[in-house]
Amino acid sequence: MDTGTAGTFDQIEIGQTDEFHHQVTESDLDAFCNLTGDDNPLHMDVEYASKTNFKERVVHGMLTASFISTMIGTKIPGKGSLLSEQHLRFLVPVRIGDMIRVWVKVKHKSQAEQIVFLKTVIYNQHNKKVVDGEAKVKVIS
Amino acid sequence: MDTGTAGTFDQIEIGQTDEFHHQVTESDLDAFCNLTGDDNPLHMDVEYASKTNFKERVVHGMLTASFISTMIGTKIPGKGSLLSEQHLRFLVPVRIGDMIRVWVKVKHKSQAEQIVFLKTVIYNQHNKKVVDGEAKVKVIS
Repeated sequence: MDTGTAGTFDQIEIGQTDEFHHQVTESDLDAFCNLTGDDNPLHMDVEYASKTNFKERVVHGMLTASFISTMIGTKIPGKGSLLSEQHLRFLVPVRIGDMIRVWVKVKHKSQAEQIVFLKTVIYNQHNKKVVDGEAKVKVIS
Repeated sequence: MDTGTAGTFDQIEIGQTDEFHHQVTESDLDAFCNLTGDDNPLHMDVEYASKTNFKERVVHGMLTASFISTMIGTKIPGKGSLLSEQHLRFLVPVRIGDMIRVWVKVKHKSQAEQIVFLKTVIYNQHNKKVVDGEAKVKVIS
């Protein structure tokens, strides 16, 4: 994963976009479950999930959404960013093995508050929007 | 962490609340950084953070918020829950060593859609609200 160096607040441009890809693995789910304790069988139990309409395990929504944090903390705005608000709409389940594309666009900036407003979207490998949302980010440095 | 067994949709009561406590450790931040690649120095670099107004590392907002997933997936509504929407407002920075309290209350239910609307709040050990938010959760089983 490319961890780009952020510019200062002034260098962030309205309309600027960036993205990165990540393939979600079974070990990502294991790590998220170990970290948070969220062992919901819809995410962690193959047999349980096989009996649902999904037929197989679904990735924890908050795990998928956590890659937006990666975008914000390493690319736009980049280092020194502090998440102030995040709205997430989970549209399509993500499966193990899916290649997600985390895409962010700068919508507005508030110079006075040093805040950036972002559109935050995650697509799957079929170019389907799996997570839609917006973020408000304070730029500390 | 207590991983309670969920009831069915019909057993979820409006007004019902639940909570759990978790002490955020340095290894939580390491695990989140390894999982997501979010190595924002505000979260991961002691020296960088010491030069900011925070004076010390701040916990990734999405790491703190991920414990709401734990509440949803293991307690209310519990297993078989699928996050449909989550709104998060990060009010106060969380520090390493903070004891967070994740608190959830059932606001509404939609029988037709098998959806539960939750108030989702996280407090710190000083009883300060660190994350405020709402979630919409589909109950699969």
